[in-house]
Amino acid sequence: MNRVCKLWGIRYPIIQGGMVWCSGWRLASAVSNAGGLGLLGAGSMPVDVLREHIRKCKSATDKPFGVNVPLRYPEIEKVMHLLVEEAVKIVFTSAGNPGTWTGFLKDRGVTVAHVVSSSKFAAKSEKAGVDAVVAEGFEAGGHNGREETTTLCLVPAVRKATSLPLIAAGGIGTGEAMLAVQALGAEGVQIGTRFALTLESSAHEAFKQLCLNLMEGDTKLLLKKLSPTRLVKGDFMSAVEAAEARGASVEEMQTLLGRGRSKKGIFEGDLKEGELEIGQVASMFRQLQSVEEAMHDIIDAYRRAHAAVAQNSGLA
Amino acid sequence: MNRVCKLWGIRYPIIQGGMVWCSGWRLASAVSNAGGLGLLGAGSMPVDVLREHIRKCKSATDKPFGVNVPLRYPEIEKVMHLLVEEAVKIVFTSAGNPGTWTGFLKDRGVTVAHVVSSSKFAAKSEKAGVDAVVAEGFEAGGHNGREETTTLCLVPAVRKATSLPLIAAGGIGTGEAMLAVQALGAEGVQIGTRFALTLESSAHEAFKQLCLNLMEGDTKLLLKKLSPTRLVKGDFMSAVEAAEARGASVEEMQTLLGRGRSKKGIFEGDLKEGELEIGQVASMFRQLQSVEEAMHDIIDAYRRAHAAVAQNSGLA
Repeated sequence: MNRVCKLWGIRYPIIQGGMVWCSGWRLASAVSNAGGLGLLGAGSMPVDVLREHIRKCKSATDKPFGVNVPLRYPEIEKVMHLLVEEAVKIVFTSAGNPGTWTGFLKDRGVTVAHVVSSSKFAAKSEKAGVDAVVAEGFEAGGHNGREETTTLCLVPAVRKATSLPLIAAGGIGTGEAMLAVQALGAEGVQIGTRFALTLESSAHEAFKQLCLNLMEGDTKLLLKKLSPTRLVKGDFMSAVEAAEARGASVEEMQTLLGRGRSKKGIFEGDLKEGELEIGQVASMFRQLQSVEEAMHDIIDAYRRAHAAVAQNSGLA
Repeated sequence: MNRVCKLWGIRYPIIQGGMVWCSGWRLASAVSNAGGLGLLGAGSMPVDVLREHIRKCKSATDKPFGVNVPLRYPEIEKVMHLLVEEAVKIVFTSAGNPGTWTGFLKDRGVTVAHVVSSSKFAAKSEKAGVDAVVAEGFEAGGHNGREETTTLCLVPAVRKATSLPLIAAGGIGTGEAMLAVQALGAEGVQIGTRFALTLESSAHEAFKQLCLNLMEGDTKLLLKKLSPTRLVKGDFMSAVEAAEARGASVEEMQTLLGRGRSKKGIFEGDLKEGELEIGQVASMFRQLQSVEEAMHDIIDAYRRAHAAVAQNSGLA
């Protein structure tokens, strides 16, 4: 996994996903301080709020950190110039064409990783000049690819399509899963859900508690006529499922979704009206931990799983 | 992985999924002869055909082999008695309640594994007295669980829920994936897709060639109002998608599906009218191999991946 650690100067090849409404300066700086790479989630921040979080993150850690920017961000030009002004050195882009901004960032000394859901987009990202790709599978929370390729199938396909440093995402919250994707060719992991459910995450306490009590099968990829999104079971998800089952049109789905629902759900803790997004792996976690505790658990489990696999090939 | 090998007296902890229209005596005996565990797929065989395949399989291998029986088989009683009459010693059950037939089989000296798509059903299977469980994720071909839990998320959850020997399935066709699920706690793998696309598989040549040319995203889990099934892109899948998008009722979907479509597609090679089922992992394979070649590749890749992981922890 050394290429990922070297690229960003981090101790562990563990990146914290830059999630909407969860990933402010507290979470990102805690992950960076614990030896991973923390990312601010620009997707849910107006430009001035993002500036504030970058500055606070710098004060809170002397370790590398980055910013995740969804390329369909309405004020994308302003964000990109802000990142350069504020001397952000690491940018993860997602949800859009990596060709548009990679050159701009690279020319200004920024390392760029792009999040993809297919090997086709991985190859496209390499062509666009990115430094690394994140391959994110179907089990991930929130917005997701249309092809529904799972992490187990996606990582080897992306590994074949590019020689760049490869980070696996989706369904990874433990050291065992980290070892599993390493076996598939990944050199690092991006972890969203587990960090969204830490003390330092800016998600609302009610959202965290709901997610820490989910059972298997309590999330589902829906809203496929708009942008496929993994939702948590509840009132809004039931409404979406009912609308989709009766064949609601794109326009009806847009009206049902409305605006600002993910803020309402994740940040304000409105479990009735809000849109709740989390990964499938949530059902493995029951305790609200600090980032430090979560990182310690992940590293520890990785080491134990690694030793167990190394000792026992099973194919003697 | 030794518990799985010991349980069935096999060399490698690799089970060939008992798939409809693919898994006759030629495939099952070839897998058993190559050191894995071959399974006849009873799901697509009338009782007299199944008897013939059991007898031919016995003549073709002196190694252990088994039969996969979907518990919702219309003539389930006849099948169970046939298995005992023909002295079949290994049965994999799926799609139904493991409580109904496990005792009957165990009392007659048969070892039983049950296929599950959730940890709840894994615990239920253990209570029913099965000897092993197969945890099959969302990426698998054909019929699938409603909860859509991927192999990466399912295997650790099932590992927690039961102390029984655990076999991972869904998205596994390579030695790297075999090592990955071992890291998650699996002691063996069940491989469907890759064996469905071998020379010895009884699937139609046209079906095999179609599947050996799929791209990522060319399969999709559909028919969710009936029984969720992973289909291959083509005319029938387009018709299903269109019907589902307009909110077609259960009755309309049943009429659209009709009867005998999977035979038509997989066995008779009617790519227009047939129902085509294969796993997400199909897009990784491009060559029609013999079972022996496929097994050799899997074992070889496993050993290389194992050595690579053992040498490089990445967390030094």
